[in-house]
Amino acid sequence: MSRTLTERILHGNAGEYVDARVDRAYVHDGTGVLTLASFREMGVPIGIDPARISVLFDHICPANNGTTADLQRELRQYASSAGVLFSDCGGGICHQIMSEGCILPGEVVVGADSHSCTGGAFGAFATGVGATDMAAIWASGETWFRVPETIGISLEGTLSGGAEAKDVALNVVSRLGMEGATYAALEYTGPGAETIDMEGRLCICNMGVETGAKNALFYADPVCREYLAGYGHHVETQVPEDCSYREECIIDLDDIVPLVALPHRVDSTRPVADLAGTEVDQVLLGTCTNGRYTDLKRFAEMVRGSKVKVRTIVVPASASVLLRATEDGIIADLIAAGCMVVTPGCGPCLGIHSGVLGEGEVCLSTANRNFKNRMGVGGEIYLASPATAAATALTGSITEPEVFHA
Amino acid sequence: MSRTLTERILHGNAGEYVDARVDRAYVHDGTGVLTLASFREMGVPIGIDPARISVLFDHICPANNGTTADLQRELRQYASSAGVLFSDCGGGICHQIMSEGCILPGEVVVGADSHSCTGGAFGAFATGVGATDMAAIWASGETWFRVPETIGISLEGTLSGGAEAKDVALNVVSRLGMEGATYAALEYTGPGAETIDMEGRLCICNMGVETGAKNALFYADPVCREYLAGYGHHVETQVPEDCSYREECIIDLDDIVPLVALPHRVDSTRPVADLAGTEVDQVLLGTCTNGRYTDLKRFAEMVRGSKVKVRTIVVPASASVLLRATEDGIIADLIAAGCMVVTPGCGPCLGIHSGVLGEGEVCLSTANRNFKNRMGVGGEIYLASPATAAATALTGSITEPEVFHA
Repeated sequence: MSRTLTERILHGNAGEYVDARVDRAYVHDGTGVLTLASFREMGVPIGIDPARISVLFDHICPANNGTTADLQRELRQYASSAGVLFSDCGGGICHQIMSEGCILPGEVVVGADSHSCTGGAFGAFATGVGATDMAAIWASGETWFRVPETIGISLEGTLSGGAEAKDVALNVVSRLGMEGATYAALEYTGPGAETIDMEGRLCICNMGVETGAKNALFYADPVCREYLAGYGHHVETQVPEDCSYREECIIDLDDIVPLVALPHRVDSTRPVADLAGTEVDQVLLGTCTNGRYTDLKRFAEMVRGSKVKVRTIVVPASASVLLRATEDGIIADLIAAGCMVVTPGCGPCLGIHSGVLGEGEVCLSTANRNFKNRMGVGGEIYLASPATAAATALTGSITEPEVFHA
Repeated sequence: MSRTLTERILHGNAGEYVDARVDRAYVHDGTGVLTLASFREMGVPIGIDPARISVLFDHICPANNGTTADLQRELRQYASSAGVLFSDCGGGICHQIMSEGCILPGEVVVGADSHSCTGGAFGAFATGVGATDMAAIWASGETWFRVPETIGISLEGTLSGGAEAKDVALNVVSRLGMEGATYAALEYTGPGAETIDMEGRLCICNMGVETGAKNALFYADPVCREYLAGYGHHVETQVPEDCSYREECIIDLDDIVPLVALPHRVDSTRPVADLAGTEVDQVLLGTCTNGRYTDLKRFAEMVRGSKVKVRTIVVPASASVLLRATEDGIIADLIAAGCMVVTPGCGPCLGIHSGVLGEGEVCLSTANRNFKNRMGVGGEIYLASPATAAATALTGSITEPEVFHA
């Protein structure tokens, strides 16, 4: 029996402990501050090519108070002096920037954020680590892992009827449960995989951690190769081998319908149709799950020429996304429809500084988490796709995207 | 002797007390909450056509925490039920929205914000009032004023050499001093006035209050008439009469050079050349002083094809400004140059929720106030024009705009 893709990348079998050379290590403004503090406490020099380290500000951009500004300045100055890759406020979400040509198939990628599993979309082993682990990685260039067991998810068919990659992601979380894949790898294979574009794969891998998974990944196929060629990288594709999975499931994409996750669990999904008519106060399009170009484009196509009925916040995932969407007229369409386009970054998803919900307010969000009080004490979060978000913004209550396809 | 424009609008001579019918009354999210509380305490119905009241959210947009969200929701619901004009978060700064066709020559306009003097650019009497006064205005449609004495400011010549309307505004504040025109009206006349476009006049009137002035105004001339025609208003021009001013000064626009106001007084101005080389951490383009279309355009023309050297925050003054600048490629130029475009509104100018400075950080801002700690405790603010801001963003230190004209 051959190895799973995760085993191949980590050079070990499930259950074994391995030392791994880290190809890319990144932090954001929140965890970066903690990483730097831990690293300085260690009193050692950087033991990894600084070009493999990225410091990407996304959590509170621009700074919401003096303390944040002070901390960001310290980290900014360090990044500059250490010669690591640096993206300041407004550059965008760390996971998105890394996906813009900074992660290649077969790499070991660690980010000091739970959604670092996003990068698995490129056939990499990508996972989140704590700030102290990250400091040790800055020092040594390596870290250890217990090689995860793998859950194989075979995709068949193609998406249709208003369903999107986000609905696949929600379906998987719902099927496995929020602790159903703890420390496992989610490996997406099958003929349906190649029908999902890279931005869809990033969305699906991003939500892997919502099942407790250590990582989630797609094999690098011609779609991936072509995407990376756009960033000047010419990579080999990865071919699945006949391997042993802890568990296997099959998803027929034709069966996927637009889903919504109810407050306050990501795995509490229902067809959008079942929730139709639930009034919302705010719609959020964005985050590391769904703030990408095709997400904005899809949303804009649906709201173009109309006016949104509730306050609608659009957070492009990165400055590159924003620039492309601006040049293509998408941003103009969104503004004309009454959407509020805010600084690229994590934006309201964290409930810390921007777009916070009031007591009892309801948000339909394209983010990955709807935990209690996440976007504001007493707020309620429903998770759905960009298409469902657009349909909902246009009516002011949860609405199936298909309504606007007729 | 005839009356000044302020006397003509208020139907009284300087020093007299008059009751005035209020044509437009507006509040923002900060003062609106206070106004509503006072108004409810009065227990009376609205005594003014609701179409003359505007509620325009701009101070903390989108909401930075649950309390703000709760307060905004209450005011939003009231605005909806009362049928007043309402602009939600992202619509833009109250003064800018009012200047987009909502203020006409000869009107009496009150806003619950000190920079409500901005609207004087249309030959209106526009001034700031407190929230309690505003509540009484909601109740009665009227208020009283002591008719201000007028300081006549005659403009001659034309701006040149990189100087902009903002430099005129800074020159006036510097010349009169921060308390030099307390409760006076500033009346701009002379052949130079007609060389300044409406956005420049809005900038100049906006800063009137920095001299302590009650209001500041330009006569409605053909430039004003044409601007308002763009919003569907066909207005008469106002012709200055031979009137008696408390004080007169003449400004030759040809003599105006790019100025910068040093921390922490608006009247502590110097030629930009004297400060050249002062390093900055942040550049802010925006606010009710300089967040308009021509400001963004001017800035974009200077940074196009280059990269800014310090973090640069651009806050369009309104969604309309943002939309126009987006459609014209200005926003794409700004993003490509590395600027961070944030939600239309007051943005970092208040130092409350976004773009706050760290201890000792320096900001070159196009705003109207550089008071100590305004943008963050221990921060230092230099005020200048959009052109000076662009030159400074490109070098990372205070720079004369002329450097980039060569």
